[in-house]
Parts: sequence; structure tokens; C-alpha cells
Amino acid sequence: MTDLSDLHVIVPAGGSGTRLWPLSRQSRPKFLLDLLGDGRSLLQQTWDRLEPLVGPDRVHVVTGVAHASGVREQLPALTRLVVEPSPRDSMPAIGLAAAIVAQRDPDAIVGSFAADHVVRGDGEFVAAVHEAVVAARSGLVATIGISPTAPSTAFGYIEAGEATGLEGAPTARAVRRFVEKPDLATAEEYLASGAFSWNAGMFVVRAGVLLDHLARLQPTLHDGVRAIAADWYSSERDQTMAAVWPTLTKIAIDHAVAEPVSLEGGMAVVPGTFGWDDIGDFAALTQVGATSTPGTVFIDADGLVIAGDDTQVAVVGLRDVVVARTADALLVTTRAHAQRVKEVPAALLAQGRADLQ
Amino acid sequence: MTDLSDLHVIVPAGGSGTRLWPLSRQSRPKFLLDLLGDGRSLLQQTWDRLEPLVGPDRVHVVTGVAHASGVREQLPALTRLVVEPSPRDSMPAIGLAAAIVAQRDPDAIVGSFAADHVVRGDGEFVAAVHEAVVAARSGLVATIGISPTAPSTAFGYIEAGEATGLEGAPTARAVRRFVEKPDLATAEEYLASGAFSWNAGMFVVRAGVLLDHLARLQPTLHDGVRAIAADWYSSERDQTMAAVWPTLTKIAIDHAVAEPVSLEGGMAVVPGTFGWDDIGDFAALTQVGATSTPGTVFIDADGLVIAGDDTQVAVVGLRDVVVARTADALLVTTRAHAQRVKEVPAALLAQGRADLQ
Repeated sequence: MTDLSDLHVIVPAGGSGTRLWPLSRQSRPKFLLDLLGDGRSLLQQTWDRLEPLVGPDRVHVVTGVAHASGVREQLPALTRLVVEPSPRDSMPAIGLAAAIVAQRDPDAIVGSFAADHVVRGDGEFVAAVHEAVVAARSGLVATIGISPTAPSTAFGYIEAGEATGLEGAPTARAVRRFVEKPDLATAEEYLASGAFSWNAGMFVVRAGVLLDHLARLQPTLHDGVRAIAADWYSSERDQTMAAVWPTLTKIAIDHAVAEPVSLEGGMAVVPGTFGWDDIGDFAALTQVGATSTPGTVFIDADGLVIAGDDTQVAVVGLRDVVVARTADALLVTTRAHAQRVKEVPAALLAQGRADLQ
Repeated sequence: MTDLSDLHVIVPAGGSGTRLWPLSRQSRPKFLLDLLGDGRSLLQQTWDRLEPLVGPDRVHVVTGVAHASGVREQLPALTRLVVEPSPRDSMPAIGLAAAIVAQRDPDAIVGSFAADHVVRGDGEFVAAVHEAVVAARSGLVATIGISPTAPSTAFGYIEAGEATGLEGAPTARAVRRFVEKPDLATAEEYLASGAFSWNAGMFVVRAGVLLDHLARLQPTLHDGVRAIAADWYSSERDQTMAAVWPTLTKIAIDHAVAEPVSLEGGMAVVPGTFGWDDIGDFAALTQVGATSTPGTVFIDADGLVIAGDDTQVAVVGLRDVVVARTADALLVTTRAHAQRVKEVPAALLAQGRADLQ
């Protein structure tokens, strides 16, 4: 495996996870939660997976001002925290972190990994990171895709083309295109073809290469993150951040860079064979092995019951039920309706309960 | 209408209501709960319905030692409280209260009405009580049955025979027999025949007549309640109660008196046309007009949601659901499974959580 001493990790920690209400809230986002009940939040598990590869001083977490203290509390060894004054989607977050890295080392590789995904199989994950770093060093924007295990309609897909032929990256292939979440028939075709991976939002690229793409494709955004980064290690940091950040284009890295660059032949995908999920909803939570609160009584019933406040729950006569209880709220639904849970925070807002979103 | 100055009301306040878990508990029985959300418990509503007929000093409440303070708190005007050292079913409770009344006035009429039933239509209820008192004065054991509105399989039935012909009791008919909860086909026959009422456990009888029946049918029970009553207004009350109560036969008034006396032609039934329910389970609670906690979010869903701790509940994609939440517990079921809720306290006991029964 290749040496990773030029790799910096960027962890964008944003998004509240509205389909996991009431466990997740705007004030208590998914990445800060111990959703699997094993004593570490998703953010902490992300740290545990990545920090050993690069050391504590090369992990950069980007989060919103509302969650900065939560992140600091959960990651006491974290030294690189970028606090966003307001949410501008993933490209400004990753772009700024990359610009800050490039400010001191333009040849560094940056790898971006979401704060709220689950990975099972660390060895295979690390092997994929190594291949992606090799591809990134060649000047490509690399992504680690996930080899699909089912015809999921919940994820976007990446279609792979020819092998890159890079030494040290035997499984890396050119990206032909990114596609949005498909319908079931299309997802089944994708699964059968063997050429498609799930888009897990893991991008690995030389910082300078990413910024060059940005300069071309999103010039004002590029200039903005460069300007903030230029003052990052000076006394002007906060002032420049406050002035420039609100002007940055709100856009996801997929749309800003990945899709256009893939069509130009500038991307590679490394298929990951490790277990992965973004735990988008309660159905996914079941799939990654979450179990009901011990002592839950099921009578002619089954499903996932999470009593966050450790109270006694009993379910009678319902199959595939999902129950999530916190001290101040309660959700009752079924696995089949897991995606519609996002309508609950919206309904609460409509009836004036922004406090419960 | 007849004068009611000879009437005493007996309210047996027992039973925990296991099919209404977790709202009802052994420590918080159904009769102490404000199940309809109108600010008065079922016991208080029973008081509100009966006290105006007889005055506060002729309402006798019989309850277990665990609930005496709850009863006193809810009924500050109550002066006649009989505290049972242990539960012995309804005949000892009603028999003792009747014996205490007879101790001072053997010609008094006693009327027994459960503490945890719902009555809608006070005028019709009062008219039925008047007829029952007239029938009781003639020496009969009168019962107020409920004219069925549906072929319920949840209640026992009373079959009526010939009219009694008593002046002042135009609708009173002889009781032919009591029958246990029927199957649906039988319940439909009963409903179609017009001769059957639901047994609501409302018995009205001269105290001396009731005690004479007891002396014949349950002589040791009769002697026991007479002995306790004889010392009721003396300093020996507690000592006699403690010595005799545990020896009383554990039996319901239906089996001890109503069934045998009905077969001897000694009972009359007054059909009640008022609304009535014993709120045996959550399905019944819906029928008597209980509504979901305000603010509950239903998305592609409906049912009854009771958030006893006033938290936010959301239900997504379930029909006819029943959700009952308290500070320490939660039930999720459907209306169709309402009867099986009684299995929950049993399951909790089996897993060592007697505290949550």
C-alpha cells in the first residue's frame, strides 16, 4: 500500500437527518447521535476510522456554528475545525477546507468523507482509500463508490468505464457518468450490469487540482474560498470569513465538480466492497443492525423500537413497526413508510413547533 | 318521579384496567383517571352523576387500601368510605356497604354503580334509577340494563321477561336470566330480539332484601359482613374488619345473588336508553368520544393517540392505530388488538417489571 503522508481528511458535518425524527433534530443532528447504540456517535466513528490513517492534525471537520461545541466535545483531539457561519451546502465546505490545506501544501491530497455514514470492514475501506489516493496523485478526481448489494432507489449511482491502469490502483476505473436516484427497474439493471456503484460522497483529489477545477467551473466560489484561506492563519480570519462566506454559491460538490469533471474524463472510481450505509431513514437503521431497546415487549408484533429515554415500550399486533421515543417526542410508523418521516418536521413547522424540528 | 330519600348509593371502586396499560396501572386504576380528557376522573364523574340524587352523606365508596388516599383526594366531600384490606371481588364490597346502611336503616334502598363506567344522558339515567327504586321497594332485586346499540361480544346480557306491572316503573320487566359474553352470532340474535340488555352491574335493592338473599345463598359471607357492620360505628371497627374481612368468600355479586335470584323470579330489569360504556379497552375509549392529544401529527394515518405527558407524537402510515404514552411507558397497538393489551402487564411481570404493571 502507498504512503499516506500527503493525505488530509475533510469531514463535512452537516445536515440534520429529517427522516430520523425525533432522534435527529436541527439542534441534535444525525452525526452527533449514537444511532447504533455502541457508545460512539457517527462522527466519532468517522474519526475512529480516519484519524489512524493521517493523525489528529490532518483531520479537518467543517460544521455549522450551532454544532461547533457539540463537535469539540465529542472529538477532544480535534485541532482543525472550520465553523461555517451559515449552511452553503458541501462545495463551499469542502472547497474552503481544501484551500486551507493548499495554503500550506498545494500538493497535498484531500479526501472528503461524510460525518454520518456507517462503514463496516475497515480493512477494505482503507485499501480503497489507498487506491483513491494513488488515482488522485495522477491528477484525477477519485471517488470511492460502493458496490451495490441490492437495487436501492435511495442512492445516486456512478457508472464505471475503462480501467485506469494506474500502478497501485488496480481496481480504479474511469467514471463514465453520475446518475441520480433511479426507479426500481433501472436500479435492477444497474445492479445486474456490474458497472455501477453507489455514490457515497467520498472524494479524493489533490487540493490544487480541486481548486483548479473550481477556478474554471465556479470561479466566484473559488476566489471566495481562496480569499478566506489566505487569511486563515492571520488575525483577519474571522473578519474575512464573516465578509466572504455569505457570498459563496450554495452548491453540492456533486453538481459543482464531480458531474462536470466526470463528463470530461477527469474522474476515477474505486469500487468499495466494504459495508456502507448513509442511514437515511429508519429502514436503513434496521439494515445496519440497530436493535430494539432491551426489555421492549412485542406481543404478536415485531420491528425496531428505540426508547431513547429508556422507558418501557410495548407493541401489540403490528408488524415491521418503527417506534422512536425521546423525552419530548414520539414517532410511530412502519419500515415501509420510513422515507415519509421527513414530512413530520415539516408538519411541525407548519403548526408552529419549530422547536421540535 | 318517586322520592329518593330512602336511597343510598354504593360505588365499588376496584379493578385496575389492565387493557388500558400504560394509562392504567395497579397504582393508578382506571377509576382515578381522566380518560375522556374533560378534567374529571371516571370516579369524579360517577360522583357528579349520583351525589345530586342522594346528597354527599348517602354515597358510600368502597375501595382498596392502596387507593383510599387517591379517592379521598378526588372526592373531598365524601364522608362514607369503606376501605378493603384486600380485594375480595364485588359481593363482599357491596354486601358490607349494604350491611352498614342496614345497621341504621334496614328499609333503606341501596343502589350499586361502578366507579369506572361512562354514562351519557343524565336525564334518562335518573329516570331509570327512579324506576329501579320503585321495583326495589316492591321487594325485587332491580338492575338497570343497557339497551344494546350493537351486537357487542364484550358484555354479558340480561334477558327480560314479562312486564312487572308496577306503578311508577312502567318499563321494568322480570329478569328471565343472565347470560355470559356471547359470540357474535348470538349477540346478533340478542340484538334483533329486543329482549336483551347489557349487564352494566347496576343493582338496586332494599338493603334488608339483599342481606336476606345473602343469608340464604352465601351464609358465611352474610354473617361476616353483618359482624363487621355491627362494629362499624364503634371503636372495634378496625379490629373486627381486620379479623373478619380476610374470611369473606371472594365472589362477584352476579354469581352470588343476581343469577340465582333471577332464576327464582326475584329480579327486575329496567332497560336504560342512555349512552353507557365500561371503557374496557382502547377501542371502547374511541367509541365514547376520546380524542387524540391536540397537536398530534398524522401523516397518511389515523387513530387514537394519547400523550399523557403532553409530548409531541407523530404517526406515519398506520391506520386505526392506538398510541398511549406516559412519562415512563408507551403502548403502540391497533384498535383491532385492543383486547390483547392485557397481555402486556403480564409480560412485564414475567420479565421482572412488577413496578410497571
